[in-house]
Amino acid sequence: MNQPHIKKMAVIGVGLIGGSFSRALKSAGAVGQVAGFDRDPENLAEAVRLGVVDTAASTLAEVVQGADLVFIAVPVGSVAAVVAQVAPFLPPGCIVTDGGSVKAEVVQACEPLMPDGTFFVGGHPIAGTEHSGAAAAFAELYQGRRCILTPTATTSAEALELVHRLWLATGCRVECMDALTHDRVFAAVSHLPHMVAYALVHAVAGSAEEEDSILAFSAGGFRDFTRIASSDPAMWRDIALMNRGALLDMLDRYSVEFNTLREHVANGDGLWLEEFFHTSKRLRDGIA
Amino acid sequence: MNQPHIKKMAVIGVGLIGGSFSRALKSAGAVGQVAGFDRDPENLAEAVRLGVVDTAASTLAEVVQGADLVFIAVPVGSVAAVVAQVAPFLPPGCIVTDGGSVKAEVVQACEPLMPDGTFFVGGHPIAGTEHSGAAAAFAELYQGRRCILTPTATTSAEALELVHRLWLATGCRVECMDALTHDRVFAAVSHLPHMVAYALVHAVAGSAEEEDSILAFSAGGFRDFTRIASSDPAMWRDIALMNRGALLDMLDRYSVEFNTLREHVANGDGLWLEEFFHTSKRLRDGIA
Repeated sequence: MNQPHIKKMAVIGVGLIGGSFSRALKSAGAVGQVAGFDRDPENLAEAVRLGVVDTAASTLAEVVQGADLVFIAVPVGSVAAVVAQVAPFLPPGCIVTDGGSVKAEVVQACEPLMPDGTFFVGGHPIAGTEHSGAAAAFAELYQGRRCILTPTATTSAEALELVHRLWLATGCRVECMDALTHDRVFAAVSHLPHMVAYALVHAVAGSAEEEDSILAFSAGGFRDFTRIASSDPAMWRDIALMNRGALLDMLDRYSVEFNTLREHVANGDGLWLEEFFHTSKRLRDGIA
Repeated sequence: MNQPHIKKMAVIGVGLIGGSFSRALKSAGAVGQVAGFDRDPENLAEAVRLGVVDTAASTLAEVVQGADLVFIAVPVGSVAAVVAQVAPFLPPGCIVTDGGSVKAEVVQACEPLMPDGTFFVGGHPIAGTEHSGAAAAFAELYQGRRCILTPTATTSAEALELVHRLWLATGCRVECMDALTHDRVFAAVSHLPHMVAYALVHAVAGSAEEEDSILAFSAGGFRDFTRIASSDPAMWRDIALMNRGALLDMLDRYSVEFNTLREHVANGDGLWLEEFFHTSKRLRDGIA
């Protein structure tokens, strides 16, 4: 596909995801001017100072003025509210896309909000670090990663193609997927593991209150294993709320496995345990 | 402390842990000859071929012949059985130590098996990789890591000091700890996380049977998070059996946290979820 070019882009939420999208497209020469909006004025000022975006807008109405493309990178629970607020101010032909980690509810809520002649495309770049804010953004975040787009039956083919080409320009591979499938897949490979890690940190910290040396020894494998429990709390609150159905399915599926394992530990069933661990190892080693 | 010197060491179980102990002490010049025994003859032959040990013994009686020090690095459920088998053949003054990840039951079982004038010291080096076997052993495995020794009221001070000095020679820091405390600490920071990871891999693999694309997307964060589920199944069977009491305490403590989290996801309680995730982040970021 040819290199796309956007004359003016608006980035709403200039954090790690939004800021890195801006930096990547600037460095690829795929965008002219980038206007930013952030509900945290200090973060927005920092984004301008660091060159993450070119200009700072003080309202949502202002940031989308004259924009060909609007990228919404706020916690996923706020995406639809942002779309509702910017909708009256979108220039004709404007394409709005997002970077939220949950898709079905977002896409369903946003599509009907779009004025005639403007277009919504749901997206989810699979990238991140445990850092957040404009200062954490960097142009290479998406290189070699994947971005999933979740078009529906009514998505404009031209809008989809442009968003697809922009993500390619950041260095991503791009895949299209049904939004409900997306949400089931990420409930399994990402949302469930985060919930497990959050609960694990609470359990170990609780036991550390009774046994001082637990904290001293948690610096090794435990620290690596629980790195994902340092992710942004507001972002994960929204993910848990917005993907509740698929997440509950996975939480319950996991509970069955965990409780079965617990029973066999309690019964001291060595043969069963070895087989269970062996299957885990085989399954996990089989992951590409 | 001065550099120790062992004329002849026997290593029983020439895998990652036993083989790396041998390589580290050889490379530090702290040991003369190393005889190896392994229940897998091919692994033992490989250990000799690679210079991990100097000679291969075909029986437990043979490997301890003339040994000043015996290092037992077999799955922790077999340590006491090995001590029982070598006990009649130990030379006077011989020190036996182990590398098992569970200590209370091991130490309690081994001490009474030791003939007069021979000594047992329980040990647990906090090191490992997901690889196993003699070929995986390397001299630097223990550098900058920690080794815990679990002496009892009846442990010989001289034997303890020698084992301590040998671990220092591998590049470890060494700490002494009560065996029961050790087992509670490692139930929390290591054994529980492994159980959680094993259950998680089963749950996600089960859901992948219904949703093909789950496997395709499990290569990212999920793969990192579940690395510990690739650990040796027989080793973890023994850990779960030998540290059952402390592990069950932690499994149940974790269940309470996980089930509470699940209820709040089900109820869509965003304020509670954000607070729970925030506390996790704070606790986890506080780990040194």
